[in-house]
Amino acid sequence: MSTQDLLAAPPAVVTAGVSLFSDALRRQGAQVTEVDWTPPRSTAAAANLARVLADPRREQANELAVQRMLAAGARLVAVRPAAEALGLERGHFLHAGPPIDWEHASGPLRGALIGAVLFEGLAETPEAAERALAAGDFTWEPCHHHGAVGPMAGVVSASMWMFELIDPADGRRSWCSLNEGLGKVLRYGAYDDSVITRLRWMRDVLGPVLASGLARTDGVDIAAIIAQMVQMGDEGHNRNRAGTLMLMRDLLPDIIESGADPADVAETVRFVGGNDHFFLNLVMPACKLITGAAAGIPGSSVVTVMARNGTEFGIQTAGTGNAWFTGPAQLAKGMFLGDYGPDDANPDIGDSAITETAGIGGFAMAAAPAIVRFVGGEVSDALAATRLMYQVTSAENPRFAIPILDFRGTPTGIDVAKVVDTGVLPQINTGMAGRVAGVGQVGAGLVNPPVECFEGALAALAEAAPPLG
Amino acid sequence: MSTQDLLAAPPAVVTAGVSLFSDALRRQGAQVTEVDWTPPRSTAAAANLARVLADPRREQANELAVQRMLAAGARLVAVRPAAEALGLERGHFLHAGPPIDWEHASGPLRGALIGAVLFEGLAETPEAAERALAAGDFTWEPCHHHGAVGPMAGVVSASMWMFELIDPADGRRSWCSLNEGLGKVLRYGAYDDSVITRLRWMRDVLGPVLASGLARTDGVDIAAIIAQMVQMGDEGHNRNRAGTLMLMRDLLPDIIESGADPADVAETVRFVGGNDHFFLNLVMPACKLITGAAAGIPGSSVVTVMARNGTEFGIQTAGTGNAWFTGPAQLAKGMFLGDYGPDDANPDIGDSAITETAGIGGFAMAAAPAIVRFVGGEVSDALAATRLMYQVTSAENPRFAIPILDFRGTPTGIDVAKVVDTGVLPQINTGMAGRVAGVGQVGAGLVNPPVECFEGALAALAEAAPPLG
Repeated sequence: MSTQDLLAAPPAVVTAGVSLFSDALRRQGAQVTEVDWTPPRSTAAAANLARVLADPRREQANELAVQRMLAAGARLVAVRPAAEALGLERGHFLHAGPPIDWEHASGPLRGALIGAVLFEGLAETPEAAERALAAGDFTWEPCHHHGAVGPMAGVVSASMWMFELIDPADGRRSWCSLNEGLGKVLRYGAYDDSVITRLRWMRDVLGPVLASGLARTDGVDIAAIIAQMVQMGDEGHNRNRAGTLMLMRDLLPDIIESGADPADVAETVRFVGGNDHFFLNLVMPACKLITGAAAGIPGSSVVTVMARNGTEFGIQTAGTGNAWFTGPAQLAKGMFLGDYGPDDANPDIGDSAITETAGIGGFAMAAAPAIVRFVGGEVSDALAATRLMYQVTSAENPRFAIPILDFRGTPTGIDVAKVVDTGVLPQINTGMAGRVAGVGQVGAGLVNPPVECFEGALAALAEAAPPLG
Repeated sequence: MSTQDLLAAPPAVVTAGVSLFSDALRRQGAQVTEVDWTPPRSTAAAANLARVLADPRREQANELAVQRMLAAGARLVAVRPAAEALGLERGHFLHAGPPIDWEHASGPLRGALIGAVLFEGLAETPEAAERALAAGDFTWEPCHHHGAVGPMAGVVSASMWMFELIDPADGRRSWCSLNEGLGKVLRYGAYDDSVITRLRWMRDVLGPVLASGLARTDGVDIAAIIAQMVQMGDEGHNRNRAGTLMLMRDLLPDIIESGADPADVAETVRFVGGNDHFFLNLVMPACKLITGAAAGIPGSSVVTVMARNGTEFGIQTAGTGNAWFTGPAQLAKGMFLGDYGPDDANPDIGDSAITETAGIGGFAMAAAPAIVRFVGGEVSDALAATRLMYQVTSAENPRFAIPILDFRGTPTGIDVAKVVDTGVLPQINTGMAGRVAGVGQVGAGLVNPPVECFEGALAALAEAAPPLG
C-alpha cells in the first residue's frame, strides 16, 4: 500500500489515551476506535516505568513474590496482651499507616491515642491526655514496624490483647488487636466512657476467654476460613460475617470445655456474634503474613503494604525494603450513618488495606455482592471492581476462589509498574471515621490510594534497577 | 398484501413448539425463527388448561395465595419429642412424600423404617424389624398429614426430638426432626449400629441441650435467618452452612447459661458445627409454614406441597385441599460419593422439595453458585435455573433477595397452570439415597418432578372451575 492509497480512502484511526484527539477526529466524521489506555502522568514516571520494565530481574522476582504470597499460611496460635506479645511498654503506642507526628495526625488518630492514654491510666481526662500527647510525653510508631496491623486508627497499647498468628511454613508471626464492633469505638477515634469500659471488658474477659479456649487447641487455620468465607458472601474487609461465625464454630467447643465462667463465655458469644466485623482483625494479620512473605525480593515491583494513617497513604514493595512511599489520603465515597455526610468524614485511614494488598477486600468484591448495601454502588460495580483488579495484579489465588466468576482466583500481587502503566488504581473498600476526634464511625465506602505512592515506589525501583542498555 | 405477494417472496416462518416442523422447513432452505414454547402434552391437558385459565377466581386466588406466603413468619419455639409434639405413638411412624405401602416402598424408605423400629426397641434385629413391617405390625403415614416435614426418607418415630415452629401471625405450627449429618444416616436409609447410636445421642443429649437453651429465649426467627443466608451463599436446600452457623450464634449464649453440662454443650457445638446441613431441618418446617399459608384457597393453582417417598412424587395445591397428585419419582443427575454411580441411586425422595415450593432451594441457586461443587453443573447453570423459575411462579419474595440478581426476590408460588402451559418443570436440587436399604447417601444432584403431578392437579382444578362460557 502506497501513501497515495492511504489517502485515497477515508482514514480509520485507532487512538490510545487522551480523548481530545479522538473527539476531534469524530467531529470531523472520521471512524475512530479508542483503546483504553492512560499514559503515565509525567515524563519522569514514563522514564522510571521504562527502566523498571526493562529490569531483567523483574519478571522472576515478581513470580517469586506471588508464589510466596500464594503459599503463605496463617494460623491463630495465641491471644495475649500486647505487652507480652510485642514487648510494648506503657506510654508507647502503635498506630495504623506510615509514621506521623502529633501535629499532622488526623482527628480519629488523635482521638484513638487519647483513648489509649486514658485506657492505660496515663491521664485522668481527655484534655490531660491530649496535652500530654501534644507535649511529647508519649511515643508512637506504625504497627507495620512490628509486623502488626491495626484497623482504622489502629492504636495499640500495652494492655490491649492481640491475636497472634503464625505462618507454619517459616515461623513468621503477625498481630492484630481484638475488634470492638462498629459505631463509637476507639479505632474510629472515639474515647468516651463507653469506649473505655468496653476496652476494659475486652482486656478482663474477652481476651482471657478466647485465650483459654485457644490454648486447648493446636490453633485455628485462619487462611482456610478466609477461603471458605469468600464462598459465603464475605470479601474479608467490610464483610466478615461468615468468617466471624466460622471462628466461633472452631473455637467455642474448647472455650466451653476450658472451665471459663459460663456467664463470661455467654457474654463473649453474644459480643462476637453481634459483631459481623469481628473476624476482620484475624483476616488482617493473615493478610500481613501473606503479603509479608513477598518482602525483601530485589527487583520485585509487587506491593507488600498499603496503609493509611488518616493523613497520608503509604505503600511498601517487595523490592524496596522498609521504605514508605506516600501521598495524601483520599476521601472515600459511599454511604453515611444517620445524619452524617461527606463533610463529616476523615480521609482514608487504617492498615486494613492489607486485605486488598493480599488480593481480597475490594479486590474480591465480586464474591460479596451484598456489600454494596454497606459501601454503596450497584452489584455490577462489585463485579467490575474485581475484574478490573486483574489488570494491575500478577497472579490469581486459586485458594480464594470466587464462585460467581466460575471459581476464578482473587487478583493477587499488585504490581507498581502495572498501576503506573495503566493508571488503574487499587480498589479499596473501607469504613469512614469522623474527622473530629471523639466522633467514631460516620460511614463506609470506596476509595483509591493516591497515584503518588506508586510513582514514588516506581522511582525507587527504577533507581535500584540496572542501568538501561 | 395479497396472497399473490405472499408467495412471490421466500417465506419467513415463525414456528412455536415441536421442532419437527422447523427442521423440515430448514431442510427446504426456508428462513425459520423458533419461539421457545412447548405445548401441553395432551388434548386433555390443553382443555384443562383452558378451563383453569378461564376460571374467574384464579387471578385473585393466586394473588391471595402468594400474598399469604410472602407474609408468613417462622419462629422456632420448642424442641421436644415427637410423642409429645405430635402425639405420635410407638409403632406408628411418619415418612416423607405421599402415602405408600410396604410393597411399593423404596429401599431407603424401608431402611429408615427398619432403623426406626430398632431405635424404638420394637425389634431386636434388622431382619425381625423388616418382617414385622412387611407383616403389617406397624403403621405409617406422611409427615405432611401432621403439618410436619422430613428430609429424604423423612421417618419420624415417637422418641425422636422435633423442632417445633410457629407462624406468629396465625399460630399455625410445623415440625421437623433434627438433622443427623451426611453419609450413613437414617434418613438416607441406613440403619446399622452407628446410625442407632447417633439417634440415641440425639435423643439423650442433642435434643435436651437445644431445648434447654431455647427455653430461655422467646424463640429464634428462622425466616430472618433464611433471609440472611441467601445473602451468604446458601440456597437453603443443599447449602445451609451460613444458616447453621447463625442458628448456633443465636442459641448458644442461652444454651451455655442454661446450666447444661459443659461437656454436652461442647459436644453439641462440635456436632452442629461439623454438619453444614443441620439448618435444613429448620428451613424445611419454615417453608412448610410459608407454603401452608396458601392452603385452602378455592380457585388457586399455586402449589403448596411437593414431596417424594422414593417411589412417587406428589404435589398438593392451594385450590385442591389435601388431595395428592402423583407421578413416578425421577432419578437425579449429579455427583456421586466415592465409587457410587447412577445405578446405585434411588429415585427422588424426601419432603425437602418444600424448599423449592417456598421459592428457595433449587429456585434460589443463583444465590449459591458454590452449590455446583455439590450437585454438579456450572455456575451459569445455577443462575439460569433461578431465572427460569420466574416463568412458572406467581411472585418474587423481596424478603429473600438474591444479591447477584441485583437483589431480585426469589421466584415464589409455583403455578400449576404455568408449569403445564410452558412445559418448564420446577428445578429441585437434592441429596441422593442408595436404592438398597441400609446403604445411606450416594450423591447429590438436580432433578425435576414428573409432569404427571401437574397435569393431575390441573385436571382437578379444571373440574372444580366454573363451566366455560
